[in-house]
Amino acid sequence: MRSHYCGLVDETLIGQTVTLCGWADTRRDHGGVIFIDLRDHEGIVQTVVEPDNAAAFKVAESVRYEFCLRIIGKVRARPDKQVNDRVRTGKIEVLVDTIEVLNAAAPLPFMLDDNVGEDARLRYRYLDIRRPDMQRKMRMRTRLVSTLRRYLDTRGFQDIETPILTKATPEGARDYLVPSRVHPGEFYALPQSPQLFKQILMMAGMDRYYQIARCFRDEDLRADRQPEFTQLDMEFAFVGERDVQDFVEAMIREVFKDVVGVSLDETFPRLTYAEAMRRYGSDKPDLRIDLELVDVADAVKTCDFKVFTGPANDPGGRVAALRVPGGAELTRKQLDDYGLYVQKYGAKGLAWIRIDDLDKGREGLTSPIVKFLGEDAVKGIFDLVGAQTGDVIFFGAGPYKTVSDFLGALRLKVARDLGRVAEGWKPLWVVDFPMFEYDFDAKRYVALHHPFTAPKVDDVSDLVANAAISVSRGYDMVLNGNEIGGGSIRIHRPEMQSTVFDLLGIGKEEAEAKFGFLLDALKYGAPPHGGIAFGIDRIAALMAGTESIRDVIAFPKTASAQDLMTAAPSQVPEPQLQELHVRVVKPKAD
Amino acid sequence: MRSHYCGLVDETLIGQTVTLCGWADTRRDHGGVIFIDLRDHEGIVQTVVEPDNAAAFKVAESVRYEFCLRIIGKVRARPDKQVNDRVRTGKIEVLVDTIEVLNAAAPLPFMLDDNVGEDARLRYRYLDIRRPDMQRKMRMRTRLVSTLRRYLDTRGFQDIETPILTKATPEGARDYLVPSRVHPGEFYALPQSPQLFKQILMMAGMDRYYQIARCFRDEDLRADRQPEFTQLDMEFAFVGERDVQDFVEAMIREVFKDVVGVSLDETFPRLTYAEAMRRYGSDKPDLRIDLELVDVADAVKTCDFKVFTGPANDPGGRVAALRVPGGAELTRKQLDDYGLYVQKYGAKGLAWIRIDDLDKGREGLTSPIVKFLGEDAVKGIFDLVGAQTGDVIFFGAGPYKTVSDFLGALRLKVARDLGRVAEGWKPLWVVDFPMFEYDFDAKRYVALHHPFTAPKVDDVSDLVANAAISVSRGYDMVLNGNEIGGGSIRIHRPEMQSTVFDLLGIGKEEAEAKFGFLLDALKYGAPPHGGIAFGIDRIAALMAGTESIRDVIAFPKTASAQDLMTAAPSQVPEPQLQELHVRVVKPKAD
Repeated sequence: MRSHYCGLVDETLIGQTVTLCGWADTRRDHGGVIFIDLRDHEGIVQTVVEPDNAAAFKVAESVRYEFCLRIIGKVRARPDKQVNDRVRTGKIEVLVDTIEVLNAAAPLPFMLDDNVGEDARLRYRYLDIRRPDMQRKMRMRTRLVSTLRRYLDTRGFQDIETPILTKATPEGARDYLVPSRVHPGEFYALPQSPQLFKQILMMAGMDRYYQIARCFRDEDLRADRQPEFTQLDMEFAFVGERDVQDFVEAMIREVFKDVVGVSLDETFPRLTYAEAMRRYGSDKPDLRIDLELVDVADAVKTCDFKVFTGPANDPGGRVAALRVPGGAELTRKQLDDYGLYVQKYGAKGLAWIRIDDLDKGREGLTSPIVKFLGEDAVKGIFDLVGAQTGDVIFFGAGPYKTVSDFLGALRLKVARDLGRVAEGWKPLWVVDFPMFEYDFDAKRYVALHHPFTAPKVDDVSDLVANAAISVSRGYDMVLNGNEIGGGSIRIHRPEMQSTVFDLLGIGKEEAEAKFGFLLDALKYGAPPHGGIAFGIDRIAALMAGTESIRDVIAFPKTASAQDLMTAAPSQVPEPQLQELHVRVVKPKAD
Repeated sequence: MRSHYCGLVDETLIGQTVTLCGWADTRRDHGGVIFIDLRDHEGIVQTVVEPDNAAAFKVAESVRYEFCLRIIGKVRARPDKQVNDRVRTGKIEVLVDTIEVLNAAAPLPFMLDDNVGEDARLRYRYLDIRRPDMQRKMRMRTRLVSTLRRYLDTRGFQDIETPILTKATPEGARDYLVPSRVHPGEFYALPQSPQLFKQILMMAGMDRYYQIARCFRDEDLRADRQPEFTQLDMEFAFVGERDVQDFVEAMIREVFKDVVGVSLDETFPRLTYAEAMRRYGSDKPDLRIDLELVDVADAVKTCDFKVFTGPANDPGGRVAALRVPGGAELTRKQLDDYGLYVQKYGAKGLAWIRIDDLDKGREGLTSPIVKFLGEDAVKGIFDLVGAQTGDVIFFGAGPYKTVSDFLGALRLKVARDLGRVAEGWKPLWVVDFPMFEYDFDAKRYVALHHPFTAPKVDDVSDLVANAAISVSRGYDMVLNGNEIGGGSIRIHRPEMQSTVFDLLGIGKEEAEAKFGFLLDALKYGAPPHGGIAFGIDRIAALMAGTESIRDVIAFPKTASAQDLMTAAPSQVPEPQLQELHVRVVKPKAD
């Protein structure tokens, strides 16, 4: 139907007749001549309909925004003063010979260059994706995925599909369920990840596996979660953690170079979980920000300020400071707002000292707490953090995890507000995660990664004896404050797997019912193995330079898990439910 | 953990020390020496443990089938008389220095070279896939998919993921449903295909799309269906049917060459639906079989055999013959069995004439019907089919479709039984399908492809006036009797789409509820577009030389839609169902 793409017509084609298909991006009448900018996925070309071509002119007069057109015409140079050097088609235009309306367009619900709300964009996704910027983002994602696949296909990885209709998985989030028609009262679950299947594939001798895998979690959607999301899922047999890490680090480096032309660090820095929490208050620190948390317990152990002395003398407590250079320009209102902000992360309050002039001693400080601190404490703190005129120092005191969490969140917020986030890409590895976290509510351990992650110790009795302080063989790849990949070496011995289930309070019966096939499989010569999974939606969004993963998902769902275009979910006729042996039970009105 | 793969150790490594990981395929004690065949995905290598290496010997003595081992040793040439030229490792063996048991194996439920039932294979899939033949089949599928992707990635196709949690789709089979937790009483459906999403992507300006897409149908499983299956789904904007067909024909040719080294015909033959039904009694004819149906109504119109004369004189009837050379060797029992066989395809009976000796006239014929036929009829039939001594001629008489169907099925069955299926690959296109089939039970038209397939006529009133005989722009690719791909040019004008819905008895309200978003999207300058979908499971099975698609699916389900390994589907705790606002209603015992 066409000889060229609109966006690729350039001066090399001058004098030639071209056949183009696309959409009317604009129509302008100017000096008795009609200009139609014709757009396809490659770009926009200017076409000109002159009045002496009566047939074409008549059609052109009927053209409205987004009419779908087929145009045959001759390429000619634009007059000099109309030349646009910024686009490939900017030196030429197409003098229209014939113009055919392939399909008319009704008046649009919004113009393509409008800044419309997301609901309208999702409802009319077929118009939204026509925007050149959305085209760019969607195609960036495609390039990311095809580059990853090519990398893995040429390195012996087998792209293997695992089931979508499967058994309830153990990732801990809620499962989406599918009633079985053939087996009344039974349900499939959609996978939260292919975790167990990929481990089984290693036990099945597939050696190296990957899949661009759809995963499902029925969670209350936070800003940037989706009910279904995509991960690059990988697994290797006969490896240790450095084998996996080195391989995927090289892969990510090559992919960033190929897809966005970015050279990442030759070696990604490594932080232990403990160091990341200590210095950044986060297990996914954004290293583009040069602010760090500093422990100041030593300086305040004996001061009179109980808010500090309690945690400072408690082995499970933390008193930490975050020095923000230039923070003295923050207003009292802004400082108060930060106090409210950190409450969302569990803080009871936020202490701070503003250093208006370091040389003036106490006179030069503004602070709600400095009056409670002795001279020594203030000096001790200032020495530890390297305080200077113009700083604000924020303080957190309380349980170690809580303080780290809220100061870590504050670090991100303040850095963004003050423009202290550097340009560029800062990848790193976070390693040496604790094997377990103690859940005080449930009074038992929970797995920090998942229950199939191997501990660093090989010996079952070692693990049992030191469960609380045991370290796992898990690792996360972090980029600019996002956990883009997470993985581990897995347990490959049945007695270790049973022991970990045990420590997690998963009884023998439950383990058998949920993971019996895994425990069985481990008995028959399971190889050592490990892997990782990368969040494709997030990496694509980072590469495309957008905050929202919804911009790199063709048909995303809203925060209430609806597809506004197709209107899913929706009601279903009663007979269909009867076949599935279920009945709807609406919640009672409160 | 290893320096080489087991199956790749060969004479170029003689004298070198290698580190190998894999499974103990066999252990043999011979002349005081232990031989362990170590297997990985690349193949098997013979290792030798000599008694003077006491530590290794002790470990080797403990090794049983499928122990997972790490072996370090030196490659040496085998004694001449032990050389095996058929495998890469056949000239060498590895003299073991150290041997480490990475994981022991309990006694196996079956031996890997056993011919066990499919239930056991599926339950212990991790053992089943370790078999070299399953490794080969699974890797064949991977190669097929990666070759297809590479072909499309380099030709401007965008690999775009469409939702799995979506709205009930209109392919006609039963949907799998997923209750929504957030929207009580509402359900998602799993897609039967990404049909509407790919059309929307064309309207969204993505130009060329593909996806290796998971699809779901909750059907009663026939021998070779799966609840979830995989198709290569493709769509092109601004194309006619020949554009799509020529492109994918070249793709399939290249893929067969790359993956299995097969050169398919330079141009695939084309048959209309009418010709395929007439000559082969099938819209997916197996052209490896040289038997054809021949219409013989002209010869029997005036004979005395009512079974023939009725259909022969009815415009909706058919009297056809299938001549089978060499069929005279079939026994009476076999002929009777064919009579029973065709009843499954709607035949009331199966008439036949066996030509023991053509020169002997009626004396030389055996047949239950020849006595009802006059001399002229028999001669007329024999002339039309080209009868010869040694033939059997089968007859079908009745409604056109029924006769074609059962003689088409008989053609396949007889050809297989008599070894008349030629070696090799016979692809073809079937085109010019009827737009509609009349469903006599429902008293309305049904779509032969799907309701989005464009008719050959552009004009709405043309279609309405000639609905019963209208031809669609659909096409199927057929290979060795399998429909491996099916597609069409789609409707891109809203009025044509509404008209087709109308003819199919889909009322305005229903159309709006189910396909409102499509009708909306068609209003805003939808481009002409078309595409195709290929069955990946079937193509992989054909390439791997297996009858069963379950051999090229890692974790397939049984005929009752169960996963025997994970035991899905399964019961779900009541509170989980409450959250989803559904309750199980078990069917009443009869």
